[in-house]
Amino acid sequence: MKDDFPIAQLRKETPACQHKIHLNNAGASLSPTPVLAAIRAYFDLEARTGGYEAAALKADEIVHFYDVLAQFLHTKAHNIAFTTNATDAYAKALSSIPFQRDDVILTTDHDYVSNQIAFLYLQQRVGIKIIHAAKRPDGAVAVDSMESLIQKYRPKLVAVTHVPTNAGVVQDVYTIGKICAEQNTLYLVDACQSVGQLEVNVAEMQCDFLSATFRKFLRGPRGTGFLYVSDKVLERALTPIFPDLQGAEWIARDKYVLQKSAKRFEYWERNFANVLGAKTAVEYALQIGMPVIEKRVKSLASYTQNTLSQLKDFQVLDRSDDLCGIITLHSPKFTWQHLKQHLINQHFNVSVAVKSGAWIDFEEKGVDWALRISPHYYNTAQEIDLLFDFLSNLS
Amino acid sequence: MKDDFPIAQLRKETPACQHKIHLNNAGASLSPTPVLAAIRAYFDLEARTGGYEAAALKADEIVHFYDVLAQFLHTKAHNIAFTTNATDAYAKALSSIPFQRDDVILTTDHDYVSNQIAFLYLQQRVGIKIIHAAKRPDGAVAVDSMESLIQKYRPKLVAVTHVPTNAGVVQDVYTIGKICAEQNTLYLVDACQSVGQLEVNVAEMQCDFLSATFRKFLRGPRGTGFLYVSDKVLERALTPIFPDLQGAEWIARDKYVLQKSAKRFEYWERNFANVLGAKTAVEYALQIGMPVIEKRVKSLASYTQNTLSQLKDFQVLDRSDDLCGIITLHSPKFTWQHLKQHLINQHFNVSVAVKSGAWIDFEEKGVDWALRISPHYYNTAQEIDLLFDFLSNLS
Repeated sequence: MKDDFPIAQLRKETPACQHKIHLNNAGASLSPTPVLAAIRAYFDLEARTGGYEAAALKADEIVHFYDVLAQFLHTKAHNIAFTTNATDAYAKALSSIPFQRDDVILTTDHDYVSNQIAFLYLQQRVGIKIIHAAKRPDGAVAVDSMESLIQKYRPKLVAVTHVPTNAGVVQDVYTIGKICAEQNTLYLVDACQSVGQLEVNVAEMQCDFLSATFRKFLRGPRGTGFLYVSDKVLERALTPIFPDLQGAEWIARDKYVLQKSAKRFEYWERNFANVLGAKTAVEYALQIGMPVIEKRVKSLASYTQNTLSQLKDFQVLDRSDDLCGIITLHSPKFTWQHLKQHLINQHFNVSVAVKSGAWIDFEEKGVDWALRISPHYYNTAQEIDLLFDFLSNLS
Repeated sequence: MKDDFPIAQLRKETPACQHKIHLNNAGASLSPTPVLAAIRAYFDLEARTGGYEAAALKADEIVHFYDVLAQFLHTKAHNIAFTTNATDAYAKALSSIPFQRDDVILTTDHDYVSNQIAFLYLQQRVGIKIIHAAKRPDGAVAVDSMESLIQKYRPKLVAVTHVPTNAGVVQDVYTIGKICAEQNTLYLVDACQSVGQLEVNVAEMQCDFLSATFRKFLRGPRGTGFLYVSDKVLERALTPIFPDLQGAEWIARDKYVLQKSAKRFEYWERNFANVLGAKTAVEYALQIGMPVIEKRVKSLASYTQNTLSQLKDFQVLDRSDDLCGIITLHSPKFTWQHLKQHLINQHFNVSVAVKSGAWIDFEEKGVDWALRISPHYYNTAQEIDLLFDFLSNLS
């Protein structure tokens, strides 16, 4: 773990580091001080001057949100919609696709629980078919399976979660994107758990939609998310349920015109303190640099996997060599309630995933819960050692 | 305006009153100090301890949001969904109704622009029919027209905006609710501009859905809203597009079960600082008392209408005797841009509505913009006098 990474400075800018071992970055990360300051400053302005009035005063900064995020994702401001969370973004995208009976959604066993519920809803209501591609031995989706299923079923939509919420594995969304582009298939990527820890480049990914949140590895505020929408989708005039006065303009008694940009997928009303917090979080990641962040997270993930594999009462559930900031453990010796309470008492912040959040994956793994350890770049090997010591001695 | 209303105390608890004449409560109101304090306290806790960890520590307070709002609306916590704005709430409600070709939505000329766009979207996509009920001379929907149209067309949905955004009139949502109940017709009320200034009693209103925001007359934070859902709707298992892991539980590879409560209409992720801000705003309104608030707002609205009617270069557009905290003006002498800039320069906070926000209403009134003056209970007659003086002398 020795390198020139500015860990001291980054931890200094993360106030909670002083009294918490925060290994819950896949839940919600800790915002750095510039993000906290941006939110507080805007909030104070609103209190002093009024909600609409503050937004008018900071209009330029608010518009800049789109530019900063576009730079981060390797796209244009035109292609970005602000949403209030990743699920909102995902639902807006999915609702814009005119599914009909027997249309196929091709997805993976690792797609996020809420996405799976949305597919099942469409199965019930519209009569679509859901097909899950096969997996590689390490658990990631097998790209060759995906390719042959695309050719066989001509799916209306290919939907892949870049990094699953409850498993340590990275899906090959770039190669799948190449296949979807070749086959001219709509491609929706859930980047909720990858954005901010792995490079996310929508131009290279060739996706039509990409949904994500700011609160996880991007270190922004809760209640914020975004949707990237490709030019191809915007030109096809796909429209979410429902456009509002932000997404469309009312121009006659019985007529509206849609926004040409991804704003079509937004609602007008939002909390601008949090929009500016999200913007500042992206600027902070850009300043450190995504290649630097990704290298650091992957190195810490390997260290975590290697270290925790030595625990005798726990089993690391992840088998991938391509790790990121999510490592999952199970133990037949403890209940998860017992485990979590003891961890909280010792100031370890972690999450526990239960089966309703990862039904297919946990069924295969034969577990009904997993302890999720999710380090970020500001965590340290020493913190992982402390976790190891604690779990070693737990009874 | 003389009474025992505790105006000094309420203004003391509204910091921006000291340097702004805030007549933009129909845009976003000013939050009182207890609301600001609740948001700041939770935000600081998150920064110290982590987003999920703060939510766990404050779980009881967060659950209490539903109880407080239920008390306020005269319903049960079970029937309330948190949303991120009123449009989100409205869209969730509308998306849950299985519209088919030739189904009728019966609405009014005063329904909110985003609602009208949503109806037009359904007209284009599904082939529903939109029918607008006739109006009374004062601009409010004529209840007898509504009743006969319900009997004639058997609409799938009756949709009424309690208080229009861009006109000073109150729609008789209680009588319409009685008719809908008698005719067993789904009834959706947009209470965005009424909640917090007028008594909103969903039990008496007999509505199936009621959507609203916290940022306007309720004085809560931006980016928060709610949806009330009746037991009738919940029992019919109406489901929004799309339920997520909050609205449903994934229980097998190809199966989920819906939440029995209105949580079915929520997304799991939200900004809890703002949830607690919203809760505190409702408590604040309950503490003053809605009958007291309503009386004060109506009295101030009449004073505003009477005073501004004496302006020679302006015309008050509202003709109703049943006024509330929205008064609209037009002037052929000024551009709205000129007017608004001068008002801002003199610390008057107001909004200007343009035609795309009220197409039908403004077409009939023959105006393409309206200056919206929206006083709340913490405003004073003196502030209205200052506005009168300013507008009288404007050139």
